[in-house]
Amino acid sequence: MTRKIRILDTTLRDGEQAPGASMGLEGKLVIARELLRLGVDAIEAGFPMSSPGDFESVRSVGELVGDACMVMALTRALESDIDAAADALSTAQIPCIHTGLGVSESHLRNKLHMSREDCLARVEASVSYARSKCDLVQFYAEDAARADKEFLARVCETAIKAGATAVNIPDTTGYSLPQDFAERIRYLRTHVEGIDDVVLSVHCHNDLGMATALSLAGVAAGAMQVECTINGLGERAGNTAMEEVVMAIALHGEELDAHTDIDTREFVRASRLVQSITGMKVQANKAIVGANAFAHSSGIHQDGVLKERETYEIIDPETVGAGSGRLVLTARSGHAALRNRLEELGYSFDRDTIDEIYERFLAVADRKRAVYDEEIESIVNEYERQSAAVYTLEALQVSTGFPLTPTVTLTLSDDEGSRHTVATVGDGPINAAYDAVNQIVGLENDLTEYVVQAVTRGTDAIGEVTVRIAADDRVFVGHGADPDIVVSSVRAYLNALNRALIARRSTEYAN
Amino acid sequence: MTRKIRILDTTLRDGEQAPGASMGLEGKLVIARELLRLGVDAIEAGFPMSSPGDFESVRSVGELVGDACMVMALTRALESDIDAAADALSTAQIPCIHTGLGVSESHLRNKLHMSREDCLARVEASVSYARSKCDLVQFYAEDAARADKEFLARVCETAIKAGATAVNIPDTTGYSLPQDFAERIRYLRTHVEGIDDVVLSVHCHNDLGMATALSLAGVAAGAMQVECTINGLGERAGNTAMEEVVMAIALHGEELDAHTDIDTREFVRASRLVQSITGMKVQANKAIVGANAFAHSSGIHQDGVLKERETYEIIDPETVGAGSGRLVLTARSGHAALRNRLEELGYSFDRDTIDEIYERFLAVADRKRAVYDEEIESIVNEYERQSAAVYTLEALQVSTGFPLTPTVTLTLSDDEGSRHTVATVGDGPINAAYDAVNQIVGLENDLTEYVVQAVTRGTDAIGEVTVRIAADDRVFVGHGADPDIVVSSVRAYLNALNRALIARRSTEYAN
Repeated sequence: MTRKIRILDTTLRDGEQAPGASMGLEGKLVIARELLRLGVDAIEAGFPMSSPGDFESVRSVGELVGDACMVMALTRALESDIDAAADALSTAQIPCIHTGLGVSESHLRNKLHMSREDCLARVEASVSYARSKCDLVQFYAEDAARADKEFLARVCETAIKAGATAVNIPDTTGYSLPQDFAERIRYLRTHVEGIDDVVLSVHCHNDLGMATALSLAGVAAGAMQVECTINGLGERAGNTAMEEVVMAIALHGEELDAHTDIDTREFVRASRLVQSITGMKVQANKAIVGANAFAHSSGIHQDGVLKERETYEIIDPETVGAGSGRLVLTARSGHAALRNRLEELGYSFDRDTIDEIYERFLAVADRKRAVYDEEIESIVNEYERQSAAVYTLEALQVSTGFPLTPTVTLTLSDDEGSRHTVATVGDGPINAAYDAVNQIVGLENDLTEYVVQAVTRGTDAIGEVTVRIAADDRVFVGHGADPDIVVSSVRAYLNALNRALIARRSTEYAN
Repeated sequence: MTRKIRILDTTLRDGEQAPGASMGLEGKLVIARELLRLGVDAIEAGFPMSSPGDFESVRSVGELVGDACMVMALTRALESDIDAAADALSTAQIPCIHTGLGVSESHLRNKLHMSREDCLARVEASVSYARSKCDLVQFYAEDAARADKEFLARVCETAIKAGATAVNIPDTTGYSLPQDFAERIRYLRTHVEGIDDVVLSVHCHNDLGMATALSLAGVAAGAMQVECTINGLGERAGNTAMEEVVMAIALHGEELDAHTDIDTREFVRASRLVQSITGMKVQANKAIVGANAFAHSSGIHQDGVLKERETYEIIDPETVGAGSGRLVLTARSGHAALRNRLEELGYSFDRDTIDEIYERFLAVADRKRAVYDEEIESIVNEYERQSAAVYTLEALQVSTGFPLTPTVTLTLSDDEGSRHTVATVGDGPINAAYDAVNQIVGLENDLTEYVVQAVTRGTDAIGEVTVRIAADDRVFVGHGADPDIVVSSVRAYLNALNRALIARRSTEYAN
């Protein structure tokens, strides 16, 4: 039997730190349910001290997960952070506090203004304190890959002596070469007393496109846990992609003396879910889950070259849930069929909510022969977005074309019941409609991204629009789904503005 | 002085084999100009035997490149392929024929139906024949990473004895672990006579997300050339991304005893150009060139955590051409300023063409304060698309909104001078407009992808639409750019249909 490698998913914590990838509490719970279907060993659910939202997300994920897997909360090496994490984790059945600090010269000098001795003292104090609050404590040595090796070994030994049950060696900047990172892990295994009695974990970043190779190098050198995210979501070039590292372990298990307990058939679904909730799309040539991952070019280029598919393909697409027949609903599918499908997709709603979602489902199903899972998810997402709105779209009238002047008449209602109508012209219908929204809402902001994607194939697909705006020094993401691209563009922009307005109100209440 | 590692770019050959990434001759020449600005050592420009388009692309790139770098053409190990390659390369000043065949058991048995002895005889014959046509011959051992090591060594030795000046070891299926691939390269260096007298090249694929790490492992083991593409474009999960492998070599030059001659400041521009021409967008967390590659999350999450940018960033964004001030033109920019900028962007047009592009530039500049490079490229691309059309958009009238029934009136003219007008309704304005186009053009096809992206930031950005259609067992890509998203959607669809119609005509002529 090969070694079991633990999979720690940090999509909800490090993944969400990607600019514009905020998920909202409801989105995080949907992703957490999918992580349970994948069978991860641990979910890092947030950084409770950083915001009330993160605190609540750790609490809610803890409640949801039960004893299905470990739930972790990140902290700095500070008592106040550790207290907040312990509070947030009170709902979890297998809680783990993840505490630590920077240990490279650059972190000690520029960020923490600490001597090495101060650092060791802080490691001892914070890990001991965390252990007084929680049986499971993972220590992270931030920027370990660039730290002095001997000092890093002393840090790890101090953490283990203070009671850490796991030690995380991150390549925080994604800077390493795989062979160097492996050598560092091997060095620690021979120079740190007790290291083989705790879980040795690796956490790699993708700045040079090598996060997967770095994680595998760590596993080959003896690491027993890999920290990763769905789609490699994360700051800058992102974190290690779970689907890549798990499939590499599956294909090279014997050489690596390793296996995981992940259900790989969930990968494509998990990838789509995270894309839909964050609006961060993966590229067509993304390994394992990209649209082209299993596609060869057709036509003359390959005539007489491609003889057998397996000559070029090392993974059966079904292994990762790609290309397999997806259950499809139609206008004749009943209320119960939709409820079952929603449950299989990980949603649990009360009866009234399902009634409302069913109405929306029928409106779509009446226009289309088949309704796919992705469209059901769009309908649910759209429903959830509208249930927390300051401004609601009441009417939109668009006249445009070539050569014509795009003209829009827009009516919004606000949550005090007033209706506002304006007419505008613009370069295009979306430009004109956004101008109309701005005239009514009046929230200063900067549109930093606008992306449209067809959710399913064909010309009758629902068009999903994602926008990102910068307002009040924060980034807000908005989604909208409708067969009419102008309508979904307006819904997406309104969704982002509503989020900004709600955030502004909660800040005002707090002050 | 460290070893110079040659960079062989195969964006135009292996990159273009990605489903839907067809570039057209004009697109290939634009990319070739950018490859020269990057300073690559070799451009693989096509597979001349596979199609007249590939033949012409090798010829035209050869003409364009002059003595600036090597130009390569791919062949199977067949005299007819080698003849076609030699013909196509007749315009090149430093031509190289790239010939080879599969050498793994799977390729020999399932695809080639050859014994090992037949295979060695074919290697000898094809390399000798290629050398009789061309001074530079690179031999590729397809699926080398899965081949029997001893047999692979005999194959390489046979190719070198027959006159190969370079030997390419591909991991065709992207299956290897970096340490295994490195060991294979080291094995060949000690078991193949004469291998250090030829250029030893590595060509890796990204199926497990490790193409960059595999290529670097090859370099560390002694390879002197890396084959790669811009953005990692290529079949399935793609090829090694040039920007990743070159930046890793730049950062770890001493450890790897390696450097390249690439001008890394061109990376962001090259990436955008390839995205614009192929319509294949990179994801936000793509290493080096993704929108987030150098972005940290803003706001509370990082308050008190982020002290110094360099604590987390290993590459100065300016090194790869990101975030630096781009030259901007305005409505007051003259004819000469536009011509200069076009030349700096790699375009050389005759006077009449520049006049026509200037008119279009002014139409955009009048509506916007600033015109960025990306928009100039959009204008040029749009111009080039329209100059080879069967159907042209004459008028489009759109009425839509919420709750309204999307209605479209469309007029197209064909290249025989007839005008066609129809009115349609649909689920959305684009659905209705596409239906109208179908009623007029009547070419059966399947819309397989529809993507919209704002070319620049803000609500007044030009919206660029990319569509892919499947027709006549081939995939055609279409682009459209206009401030009105419905207009650009129609232009993109028309562009793809026009390409399909032109391809159908040329097939009919050929038959």
